[in-house]
Amino acid sequence: MKLDQIETPAALIDIARMQKNIARMQGHMNALGVAFRPHVKTTKCIDVVRAQIAAGARGITVSTLKEAEAFFAAGAEDILYAVSMAPSKLPRALALRRQGCDLKLVVDNPNAAAAIAAFSDQHGQTFEVWIEVDTDGHRSGITPEQDTLLEVGRILHENGVKVGGVMTHAGSSYELDTPEALAALAEQERAGCVRAAQRLREAGIACPAVSVGSTPTALAATQLEGVTEVRAGVYVLFDLVMHNVGVCALDDIALSVLATVIGHQADKGWAILDAGWMAMSRDRGTSKQSHDFGYGQPCLLNGTPLPGYVISAANQEHGILSATAEHAHTGEDITQRFPIGMKLRVLPNHACATGAQFPEYHAVTPDGDSVEWRRFHGW
Amino acid sequence: MKLDQIETPAALIDIARMQKNIARMQGHMNALGVAFRPHVKTTKCIDVVRAQIAAGARGITVSTLKEAEAFFAAGAEDILYAVSMAPSKLPRALALRRQGCDLKLVVDNPNAAAAIAAFSDQHGQTFEVWIEVDTDGHRSGITPEQDTLLEVGRILHENGVKVGGVMTHAGSSYELDTPEALAALAEQERAGCVRAAQRLREAGIACPAVSVGSTPTALAATQLEGVTEVRAGVYVLFDLVMHNVGVCALDDIALSVLATVIGHQADKGWAILDAGWMAMSRDRGTSKQSHDFGYGQPCLLNGTPLPGYVISAANQEHGILSATAEHAHTGEDITQRFPIGMKLRVLPNHACATGAQFPEYHAVTPDGDSVEWRRFHGW
Repeated sequence: MKLDQIETPAALIDIARMQKNIARMQGHMNALGVAFRPHVKTTKCIDVVRAQIAAGARGITVSTLKEAEAFFAAGAEDILYAVSMAPSKLPRALALRRQGCDLKLVVDNPNAAAAIAAFSDQHGQTFEVWIEVDTDGHRSGITPEQDTLLEVGRILHENGVKVGGVMTHAGSSYELDTPEALAALAEQERAGCVRAAQRLREAGIACPAVSVGSTPTALAATQLEGVTEVRAGVYVLFDLVMHNVGVCALDDIALSVLATVIGHQADKGWAILDAGWMAMSRDRGTSKQSHDFGYGQPCLLNGTPLPGYVISAANQEHGILSATAEHAHTGEDITQRFPIGMKLRVLPNHACATGAQFPEYHAVTPDGDSVEWRRFHGW
Repeated sequence: MKLDQIETPAALIDIARMQKNIARMQGHMNALGVAFRPHVKTTKCIDVVRAQIAAGARGITVSTLKEAEAFFAAGAEDILYAVSMAPSKLPRALALRRQGCDLKLVVDNPNAAAAIAAFSDQHGQTFEVWIEVDTDGHRSGITPEQDTLLEVGRILHENGVKVGGVMTHAGSSYELDTPEALAALAEQERAGCVRAAQRLREAGIACPAVSVGSTPTALAATQLEGVTEVRAGVYVLFDLVMHNVGVCALDDIALSVLATVIGHQADKGWAILDAGWMAMSRDRGTSKQSHDFGYGQPCLLNGTPLPGYVISAANQEHGILSATAEHAHTGEDITQRFPIGMKLRVLPNHACATGAQFPEYHAVTPDGDSVEWRRFHGW
């Protein structure tokens, strides 16, 4: 289907840009000598993940057990469920393990570790668990020097649960915007995770995997000594937040929302699009960054950005396109510039959030044709 | 399924609260002597809409053609598609009309009106169109005194398209929080829409329907002379934004997200939940209101709110529960207060946005049992 035949709003993936993003990350990891385990929460799309695996990814990272089930059914076997395990979810993890899925769980506290050990014993199933390490204080995990790290390690190890590794995610990298700061955080993430592994090993607990990553730190890392693998998700599509962080150009962003002009408020300089927050998501991740892109950056249908315009506000099915304060288009008639029926592409703040609003992507080839790639949602 | 057996995160609808909300709105409309046409974009759920129709709703309002198709297939016939029509969507509207759906379109500009007239002529299908009126300047529509109103009316009328009515939505009501201001806006919405109808009729264009509404103005209206019907959506579930607007109590909110405690950062006073922004949505609608509820208000499993706690931050699958600044729980051990595995219910900022993150609701009966109600998404 050609671009101008796709009903709006629609989520478009520019396949050439996506493949370039995949090649860039995989090439960087190959050069650093580490394995790469993409986080598939960004797209939840089997077609995208196949391209990541074809490029050299080893295993995948998931954020929900539904992703684990869907990607296991599609052929992925080595799966890291990278959210601290809730004991009530163990039966579902058990079912995956029994089907032959090499599912790895994550914990960061003694209670969940003990629950896994007890459940494992009760059901005669060995689980593999990675311990989550906190290297930047932004969310979960155990800091490398905390006593809890060894406590959790011992609860698992002494009760027959395999401690497969340590993992960390320096998510505070999203708040940075200079190469120096990103490189420093990448080193902090590496050093902290390697140190946690060292402490476990010194306590007699094998800890084969040392897994780090976020898109900005993965791209900024210059050496990853002691690390065995890197995880990253949003790099595959990129978005305006990542552009502000400084790790991609606008024309690396592979996800856009196709929209149609459906109205105007000429006095206010508004063109109304049929892409509101239901299409763009409510993510306003650029609002606290150096450049606030509102609800998105409008582009022509061919992908050329339109500087000086922004999606300045959004209702459920209405997006308001207007000129930015810095670029008042003096005297311009918005109804002529963006006539009724005109199609635009809008770059999103956050690819993970925007993608989740759609049941499918339209994957666009360089010649402007498209195929439908399903994605799933829910838990 | 009992509440504590439902996997988390999950979207729960408290059926008793929902029925109370439906009865309240329908009763108010009955007392004011107008028809009520619920906006089903809030739930996109056939089970909910059946309850609204059973209580007396006449027709439904939709925000997408997918809703129109799904609800028509489920038996709804009188459907108002309340987003200004994009000419490229006319083939899909035509298909619905030809199947017998009494689908009404909306326009607010001459170009779309002319496109509908031309398409209607070309395909030998009479469309019914309502003209969108702008009564509060917040988004789309033609103001009642604008020449464009009659221009659009004439383009339709003189080309054989039925002008079925005028409709307006005073969405700026979400920014108010006093009964006086809401009542004043309700009157402004009523008067503006009635005036637009009057102008059309004086120009010889029949305009049978006069349709107004938003949840706050609908509930605040004390007289609706000249109005034939009211539309509202979020009233059916309510949410924290509506609570701040002042049109519902906390215990009227029928939607909550069931979540599990999966970790802590004790030093920071954080409990980590498995409901992040993917579950709650990125909607931060209360951030500019009198009371900022962060990403949601935590409650016990039985629905009792926990004042002084809030979901203060969210990542994709992690929500951070912490004490609010005003209610520091001095000396409290967060790991004891919210132990691993504890289930909570979180009231959302915006029911329309949070619901959209889930493929289904779990509808909970007063005895704590639940049934699954599917919802759909996409366009």
